[in-house]
Amino acid sequence: MKIAVIGTGGVDRTVAAALAGLGHEVVVGTRNVENTLAGTEPDGFGNPPYAQWQQDHREIRLLPFAEAGAFGEVVLNATNGANSLEALEAVGSANLAGKVLLDLALPLDLSQGMPPTLTVANTDSLGEQIQRAFPEAKVVKSLNSVAFPVMVDPSRVPGEHGLFVAGNDEDAKHVVRGLLVGFGWPAGSIIDLGGISGARGAEMYSRLYFTLAGVLETFDFNIAVVRA
Amino acid sequence: MKIAVIGTGGVDRTVAAALAGLGHEVVVGTRNVENTLAGTEPDGFGNPPYAQWQQDHREIRLLPFAEAGAFGEVVLNATNGANSLEALEAVGSANLAGKVLLDLALPLDLSQGMPPTLTVANTDSLGEQIQRAFPEAKVVKSLNSVAFPVMVDPSRVPGEHGLFVAGNDEDAKHVVRGLLVGFGWPAGSIIDLGGISGARGAEMYSRLYFTLAGVLETFDFNIAVVRA
Repeated sequence: MKIAVIGTGGVDRTVAAALAGLGHEVVVGTRNVENTLAGTEPDGFGNPPYAQWQQDHREIRLLPFAEAGAFGEVVLNATNGANSLEALEAVGSANLAGKVLLDLALPLDLSQGMPPTLTVANTDSLGEQIQRAFPEAKVVKSLNSVAFPVMVDPSRVPGEHGLFVAGNDEDAKHVVRGLLVGFGWPAGSIIDLGGISGARGAEMYSRLYFTLAGVLETFDFNIAVVRA
Repeated sequence: MKIAVIGTGGVDRTVAAALAGLGHEVVVGTRNVENTLAGTEPDGFGNPPYAQWQQDHREIRLLPFAEAGAFGEVVLNATNGANSLEALEAVGSANLAGKVLLDLALPLDLSQGMPPTLTVANTDSLGEQIQRAFPEAKVVKSLNSVAFPVMVDPSRVPGEHGLFVAGNDEDAKHVVRGLLVGFGWPAGSIIDLGGISGARGAEMYSRLYFTLAGVLETFDFNIAVVRA
């Protein structure tokens, strides 16, 4: 499958490399290819310069946002949530129309430290905002409830634990489920939260998630939904 | 232990009855005893009239808010979260000072149906508001992450699943842990989220909780935290 990963940070690289490793044709989208490749210092999260990472992933082409969007049959939004709408505008509505837009971003405000607050919550969510802004895209919210190493390798957390999907389009959720199963998520571990408004629960859980990460002193954890 | 349960709804009655069954001396606090006993119709959630419930629980005295607060060594806030601060004002700061105030309320706004939004979230929480309003009380947030039948009988959900506590006072959390263990929660299932700001994660999880309840079509579920 042709997949465009929008964003060049740690999440993006991890997901892009995992998808390429599974045999997908993957491109990464960025605002300005030249600037992205020109960086020589680690970013604020300690990720090495993109050009350095690129050398180990020559099969993953770096393209401007719009070209990446045009290439992808599935588009992944893994940008900083606070900038997602702007980045997706640069990808372009026409390049998103009719496509699966897998949104795994969190709208985090880290200005007050950890655990972060959200830039949108309670009465709205980033997933819903993106669906409203790009009504012809088939937005599916998923993966945002675990750390990025766990996203692509659920076995980092032992035993049974769950992942959520939310979106208005059943076929799009089916495509996303296929990608998740490819990462190693058992089909039975993927819980459908219904329409895209389910993104609100998935995003608001992040406060508990980051609080737990603090007290557990690890991001290698997840929740399992246990029912009678 | 002398325990005052503030509120007369379904949660309050369930928790009060369970605590009395465990041998605690339990009173229920209400704004106006006469009015509470005068009701002859089920409430909005289908709970039978209080007077009817009272007949089956004669050992649990119904007292005005302030008298109940004065009686309790531990005070439980199980009022509607939107009214909690007002109800606790009626209980009175002096009656809460130095005591364990177990807050299991959720600040739900049900006016737009299910799943509810929260009247406070993201940058604050009900637990934090209560602690600020009653600085001499030892507020502990817990139990709010499960349905009230599960609160007092975790075995309704099979296997391992977790509960959270958050609060600034370690001794108060120790007292609450004791009550939770009394309800049947294994000590190892109780996760300490740290200070009272941990209430924010526990409360914001409620959006996911109510979304899950909708898709699972049951409230007999819970989450387990799984870690490497």
